Amino acid sequence: MDNLTVIKIGGNIIDDPAALKRFLTSFAGLAGSKLLVHGGGKIATQVAEKLGIQTVMVEGRRITDQPMLDVVTMVYGGLVNKQIVARLQALDVNAIGMTGADAGTVLAKKRPVKDIDYGMVGDIDEVDSGQIQFFLRQSLTPVFAPITYTSSGDLLNTNADTMASAIAVDMAHHNQVTLIYCFEKKGVLNDPADDNSVINELTPALYARNKAEGTINKGMIPKLDNAFKALGSGVSKVIICHADELAMAVQQGAGTTLKK
Amino acid sequence: MDNLTVIKIGGNIIDDPAALKRFLTSFAGLAGSKLLVHGGGKIATQVAEKLGIQTVMVEGRRITDQPMLDVVTMVYGGLVNKQIVARLQALDVNAIGMTGADAGTVLAKKRPVKDIDYGMVGDIDEVDSGQIQFFLRQSLTPVFAPITYTSSGDLLNTNADTMASAIAVDMAHHNQVTLIYCFEKKGVLNDPADDNSVINELTPALYARNKAEGTINKGMIPKLDNAFKALGSGVSKVIICHADELAMAVQQGAGTTLKK
Repeated sequence: MDNLTVIKIGGNIIDDPAALKRFLTSFAGLAGSKLLVHGGGKIATQVAEKLGIQTVMVEGRRITDQPMLDVVTMVYGGLVNKQIVARLQALDVNAIGMTGADAGTVLAKKRPVKDIDYGMVGDIDEVDSGQIQFFLRQSLTPVFAPITYTSSGDLLNTNADTMASAIAVDMAHHNQVTLIYCFEKKGVLNDPADDNSVINELTPALYARNKAEGTINKGMIPKLDNAFKALGSGVSKVIICHADELAMAVQQGAGTTLKK
Repeated sequence: MDNLTVIKIGGNIIDDPAALKRFLTSFAGLAGSKLLVHGGGKIATQVAEKLGIQTVMVEGRRITDQPMLDVVTMVYGGLVNKQIVARLQALDVNAIGMTGADAGTVLAKKRPVKDIDYGMVGDIDEVDSGQIQFFLRQSLTPVFAPITYTSSGDLLNTNADTMASAIAVDMAHHNQVTLIYCFEKKGVLNDPADDNSVINELTPALYARNKAEGTINKGMIPKLDNAFKALGSGVSKVIICHADELAMAVQQGAGTTLKK
């Protein structure tokens, strides 16, 4: 089996041009097959505001009506995605920017309304890992914006962590997959107030304890749920690290490594 | 050699949801390998206006400063491109949306400043037809937004007619290429005031005469210059037709066919 590194880069890094530049340089330097999933950052919110479209967040997730979906498609699928692709090209990475609609790679359905109507938000049904594998074999580096599509031809806003996890799980049919979540912290912290209290190895038992104690909370919980789910579904390794420490994390010298 | 149809769809069709839907249905119905290049339409101008960015046009071409390039990247590379891709997927066309930066397909350089500084506008240097051919062989249908990139990693706004022509010429190394410009008129008109005065066959001599008489003018001139250039550079056939008459035009029953 080939090795494949699937990397998710968070919105806070996208929003910081210098940090993004550093990250893309590290990403370009990684050996072997790789794939990037990027979040959106605050640009969508800023563009929406200027266009007079209100941003509504519930539990850290964006409520996506049609005008907001158009903004997300513009900003994530267009601006952010293409800027990353062009910069990677200049770094000699033959990047190809995609949404889930492109080459039918990530099919989803609109999230059913229960307590909250999230609007045009996608729950992933199917990843066409054969298609993605075909790009990798051609030495292309897929760069995914967090947008999927339905079989009836609608686009859907999709959580980037979930998208990275779903792609990693499906790509594990063809590859030995390492999934890395890069963000603005050095890893999963034992003490949210201490940026250096990185947990080197996180087991499900330790995760449960820290959740119960409240030291792992908020946005980290869905991220870690996704990450543990990937680890239980064929992904060989999951690391959570600072975007600046990607190269070190790959060498296992930084960040939090999840253990089964 | 394989047959390939390269189709350019103009901004006026993009701006009319019903016309775009009809066009995409015809496009989906075309047999054989095909490739779409789309223009942008007025949405970019409208979005720019709402964002407080002024649109400056000189001789029908947009002056593109960095904020306008961001808008164009959002609207053409994101919104328009991904909506077309998702709709084609629903029509069973395995579309893949791209800019020239994606997979390094269309490299350009910033247009040198002579009388006019067009800003972040690209003159095409090189089309990687081998890469595009590889997508076609995989039964993918490339859908290009009119954006290119430089070797230093910048994006550039690029005329969609020129992009279609450049791609068609380079793809002629691998294929028997028909290049079709679809727009809101039935073809090249003998009398601009009479929408039914379609010239069935346009030779360089007839083109020169109609240009001199002023019956072919304005935006049609760069379009036809591009088209004749493609015909002189390996493209087998060039047709200019109404977006609603694509299927008929392919059967040679509609539009204007250019002759060497």
